[in-house]
Amino acid sequence: MARLVNAGGRALRAEILAVGSELLMPGRAETNAVFLTGRLLEVGIAVGARVTAADEPALLESAFRAALARADVVLATGGLGPTEDDLTREAAAAALGLRLRRDPGILEALRARFAGYGRVMAPVNEKQADVLEGAEVLPNARGTAPGLWLEVAGRVLILLPGPPREMEPMFDQHALPRLRARAGGTVLATRVLRIASMGESDVEQVVAPVYKQYGNPRTTILGGAGQTELHLTAEAASREAAEARLEELAARIRAVLPGRIFSEDGRELPEVVAALLRDRGLTLSVAESCTGGLLSARLTATAGASAFLERAYVTYSNRSKTELLGVPADLIASAGAVSEEVARAMAAGARRAAGTDIAVAITGIAGPDGGTAEKPVGLVFLAVEGAAGDRVRRALFPGDRERVRHQASQAALEMIRRGLLGLAPA
Amino acid sequence: MARLVNAGGRALRAEILAVGSELLMPGRAETNAVFLTGRLLEVGIAVGARVTAADEPALLESAFRAALARADVVLATGGLGPTEDDLTREAAAAALGLRLRRDPGILEALRARFAGYGRVMAPVNEKQADVLEGAEVLPNARGTAPGLWLEVAGRVLILLPGPPREMEPMFDQHALPRLRARAGGTVLATRVLRIASMGESDVEQVVAPVYKQYGNPRTTILGGAGQTELHLTAEAASREAAEARLEELAARIRAVLPGRIFSEDGRELPEVVAALLRDRGLTLSVAESCTGGLLSARLTATAGASAFLERAYVTYSNRSKTELLGVPADLIASAGAVSEEVARAMAAGARRAAGTDIAVAITGIAGPDGGTAEKPVGLVFLAVEGAAGDRVRRALFPGDRERVRHQASQAALEMIRRGLLGLAPA
Repeated sequence: MARLVNAGGRALRAEILAVGSELLMPGRAETNAVFLTGRLLEVGIAVGARVTAADEPALLESAFRAALARADVVLATGGLGPTEDDLTREAAAAALGLRLRRDPGILEALRARFAGYGRVMAPVNEKQADVLEGAEVLPNARGTAPGLWLEVAGRVLILLPGPPREMEPMFDQHALPRLRARAGGTVLATRVLRIASMGESDVEQVVAPVYKQYGNPRTTILGGAGQTELHLTAEAASREAAEARLEELAARIRAVLPGRIFSEDGRELPEVVAALLRDRGLTLSVAESCTGGLLSARLTATAGASAFLERAYVTYSNRSKTELLGVPADLIASAGAVSEEVARAMAAGARRAAGTDIAVAITGIAGPDGGTAEKPVGLVFLAVEGAAGDRVRRALFPGDRERVRHQASQAALEMIRRGLLGLAPA
Repeated sequence: MARLVNAGGRALRAEILAVGSELLMPGRAETNAVFLTGRLLEVGIAVGARVTAADEPALLESAFRAALARADVVLATGGLGPTEDDLTREAAAAALGLRLRRDPGILEALRARFAGYGRVMAPVNEKQADVLEGAEVLPNARGTAPGLWLEVAGRVLILLPGPPREMEPMFDQHALPRLRARAGGTVLATRVLRIASMGESDVEQVVAPVYKQYGNPRTTILGGAGQTELHLTAEAASREAAEARLEELAARIRAVLPGRIFSEDGRELPEVVAALLRDRGLTLSVAESCTGGLLSARLTATAGASAFLERAYVTYSNRSKTELLGVPADLIASAGAVSEEVARAMAAGARRAAGTDIAVAITGIAGPDGGTAEKPVGLVFLAVEGAAGDRVRRALFPGDRERVRHQASQAALEMIRRGLLGLAPA
């Protein structure tokens, strides 16, 4: 567990309170806090804690009290609507020992908004006009519930609506500029270095001697399926100074990981490969078996794929491998559909049929069934043919079906990237 | 904002504390709390709040103190490792005013584990043998850091490791059975009804008069891209009684949404369509343009797709539509690649070339570029041919590229489902 930023330093500290019982349902993700964390970091404010709390008065009051005791800036999202379960204003007032006053201007605007739809406002909506004593109102351009900004005892409390399409513009327009002014000179900058061809512990071993020489920036290593990330966070008096600190360390890391870092600007591997292909005016065809279209779907997730992707074949059956890619049926029978020979034949067949500069092929056993002692689940053969060089790779990926498929698509993209850049196979 | 379960009822209340500064980095998701929320609900324990906190002693101590003051059961994940940033044990001890004792048995096991890898354990690892006064040790089958279970003043505190592959089996084997016993009689059961062919507000309008008659189960409506979900949560003295309550309400909802609910058992739409195809022994081919392989990737994400998916064509270029699917070039020139005529021709061509019982085709404008006044971004034509009937649909999906693509794949699956079940087009 690595510390994010300076614990005892000068940066302001924020906490985020997401209000809503529905956010505690199984399977729900809370996204507002993620948005706010990124924005706050941009102006030099580190988030110390995020809380998601059910719509219950005592719980919310306690959560506000704890956050206000610990943080310089407390942001709450949600619970500003008209229903009886919308309790954020009341809980904040109770935690601070403040009253709510009903604001005639907001009430007027609410009534006008309903009238604009040809409706009479039900009385239940009136509570949306309640304002904490001493608070300023943050207008809501996209909904009924206004936000609130309150400065009390050297702290800032910001209440924001829950729907992201209302919350995000309100925060950006009305809260962020004021926070930037308060943050006063301390800026945090982050950079993420992404690596597709080395696991977390291998990266750690190579990079630790470098990053451990630096207390600022701080470095965190995160491992995932087919990807390792180095997260660098620098603190300085200006954005330029923070960026300079990041660049100094990044340059030293690059030197010990030559050719391994595929992105430092937030792009994921499919975008990096897409840009390489577009910049060089090269076309690509794809032949997938076990990944079932995943590689193609990832390559087309970003706009502009039509500039390089001619077509993809998802040859799930043996018959389709033969009919569409010309893989000889007897080769499949002798070597097996999951084999280096068939991967090569799929790539060659796709390139020939599609007439593209490059073709890439994937065949493997994604599991959970279908594995044998000789060809276990996770065994994948990858082949690249054409303008990125002719390469083939045998890989054994750990994890479940989803992880195997993702790693296979990632490995295929990395093969293309390394081929295009003239780097040796990973 | 809907309340999750009974506020003043008998169910035990839990809070979850996820420890780790890296969890507060922009773009990171905290998944342990989602897992634990689902498991706790199964044994009748509702989660009142989730907290994610940075690795800082004072912050963690305060977070433990607040959680222990509010909840019957407090679960913490992470911060049990050997580094100086692993502070969970120390913070819990400080919040409770308890000491840590170094357990010789754990120390022995740690040393043996290192010896097994042929290594000598560094002293820094010894703190993983620290145990809260009065706590029981929960063995870690997959890592070094053991968990802890402590009962104090009528509350339960559970410390768990951060990595999900260590945390999940430890929780399931050593914590869940004890919690089930403590929850003593109150059981919460949940059911999710999924709908692909109606938006959130349309479902709400039809269903609200039904579910509002019930305080138990409680119902929450959640809308997403191409899917609306009704989450039902019932509380009762036994699982059977809770399930009976769920079924009573579900039956009434089914009656007002005939043919609309595609799943009540947790399955997503691709799994439902896959099961229908497998059960009927029908084969499918796919032709995708704007979705770029996404429909095929979703259909193959679950094992067993080879039973029905013969092949998929990602015909991203016009040339590939003509060469692979036999779509006449002059039809593309006259009607446009994004047209009802081309969608029909793609489906017919895929079915003919692949020799499958059914074919489905998607062509559209996913954006953000490529839209015109006549054919805006989000315009998608879908066609199904064969054993599920011949159907075509024109749709205009809102949102960004990712949402348009997802909704298009979802709509194609729903067309197949409705066709197979003999339901009228949505």
